[in-house]
Amino acid sequence: MIVIKVGGGANIDIDAVLSDVHQLWKSGTPLVLVHGASHETNQLSEKLGIPPRFVTSESGHVSRFTDSATLDAFAMASGKLNLRVVEKLQRIGTNAVGLTGVDGRLLEGARKDAIRTMVDGKRIMLRGDHTGTIEKVNVDLLRLLLDHGYLPVITVPSISYAGEAVNADADRAAAAIASALAASHLVILSNVPGLLRDVNDQASLVARTTVAEAETLAKGRFKKKVLGAKEALAGGVGEVVFATANQTSPVQAALAGGGTHLGRSSLGKDPA
Amino acid sequence: MIVIKVGGGANIDIDAVLSDVHQLWKSGTPLVLVHGASHETNQLSEKLGIPPRFVTSESGHVSRFTDSATLDAFAMASGKLNLRVVEKLQRIGTNAVGLTGVDGRLLEGARKDAIRTMVDGKRIMLRGDHTGTIEKVNVDLLRLLLDHGYLPVITVPSISYAGEAVNADADRAAAAIASALAASHLVILSNVPGLLRDVNDQASLVARTTVAEAETLAKGRFKKKVLGAKEALAGGVGEVVFATANQTSPVQAALAGGGTHLGRSSLGKDPA
Repeated sequence: MIVIKVGGGANIDIDAVLSDVHQLWKSGTPLVLVHGASHETNQLSEKLGIPPRFVTSESGHVSRFTDSATLDAFAMASGKLNLRVVEKLQRIGTNAVGLTGVDGRLLEGARKDAIRTMVDGKRIMLRGDHTGTIEKVNVDLLRLLLDHGYLPVITVPSISYAGEAVNADADRAAAAIASALAASHLVILSNVPGLLRDVNDQASLVARTTVAEAETLAKGRFKKKVLGAKEALAGGVGEVVFATANQTSPVQAALAGGGTHLGRSSLGKDPA
Repeated sequence: MIVIKVGGGANIDIDAVLSDVHQLWKSGTPLVLVHGASHETNQLSEKLGIPPRFVTSESGHVSRFTDSATLDAFAMASGKLNLRVVEKLQRIGTNAVGLTGVDGRLLEGARKDAIRTMVDGKRIMLRGDHTGTIEKVNVDLLRLLLDHGYLPVITVPSISYAGEAVNADADRAAAAIASALAASHLVILSNVPGLLRDVNDQASLVARTTVAEAETLAKGRFKKKVLGAKEALAGGVGEVVFATANQTSPVQAALAGGGTHLGRSSLGKDPA
């Protein structure tokens, strides 16, 4: 089982990813595809006059502050993107079914309605956030679809225990799904080739690393991807790969050794 | 099996519908819910600067002209509405799963890329329409979900044979679903009590009618609902009911005799 996460950001060659997904699917590899919708949400929010608001936590993670209007924009953007991804997969012959984390409580966890952030060196608490963590995955629903020939295409929002649609990080959602499915690989595709020792030098790509080193190397929003990788490995996933979506057969290239690889041994728990 | 269609229009008490859906579901009645998204799409299109465009066919049916930007708006609006409906059902304890007609090619048919319309008494042909009819329903996917305890919540777009997401009439989509599932009832809820002999007199509600009479009584966009009813009855559905969503337990009220009822005998095919 392979779980593939592809960013919803600008400069992502989604067609290359979907074509590769189709090839793997046709060859009989069980797959789940997870996508983000940040870029679409930002664009739509600007058009609707609700500019995105990002906050940085004390630990340095960057998060979107999701008020109710932003969650609506997020639902619209992710709904459209999910439809378009499923449409493209159907057009090339992959029997995709789109799901949000709300469907069948696919991705469930606690809502955090407040977010701690630093403003001018002071801690402040922002309330009214519609954000959640993912603690449970409805594996039965995924297996039901997979066992009957459907490729699940998953997007957040997720759902809180109280039944509220909430925003959640798509990389960590992919990690939770990969863990729940005991995936051999979680492939996280973005518009960068992987973890770099020097962000200005593509040749400084780190081919294999540990979680501890990845935590040091990751900058900005890549920190969330490393957090997702750590959670996936701790959850039993065999290997996590960070790679670029923008190449021919990006998933197969990542599985064949491209990008940055983190194995279970890199957690220091399960030497392999 | 009961298929319930609820409009996405303004002045629809969706909470009353969902609460009733929950009660029926809890009691073990197999159900499928279909919703429209016209109102949300119109609102969003206006905000995005792409005002909705409606055209009237030679036979007097009113349709939305769906260019590519409008289909995107439609995908966004229906995606958000679907998420919110599934969220509300999950919150009250119904295990809903949202689907578009593109998912698993749930609702499939021919695309019509041109639309004939009358402008100033002249026939004109508008090209670039992303609209389709529904000729096939993926019943296996619906039964798979129903058999495993999930309530399908369905919205258009549908998918063309060529794999394009297309707009389709939600009433006729509900009719196709009800036919495919051999439903005993198709309940079409809107913001009017049913078919009226006099549109200005709510007391002129027609409790039971034939398709032929309904075709005479229906005005404006209600004609599409009657067309849906005709298709459903021809497809083997036991009874079609037009009723208002805006009352306590609207589905149960409709099943108990409220609104306007059309039975199979009204087609003149299967006298009962």
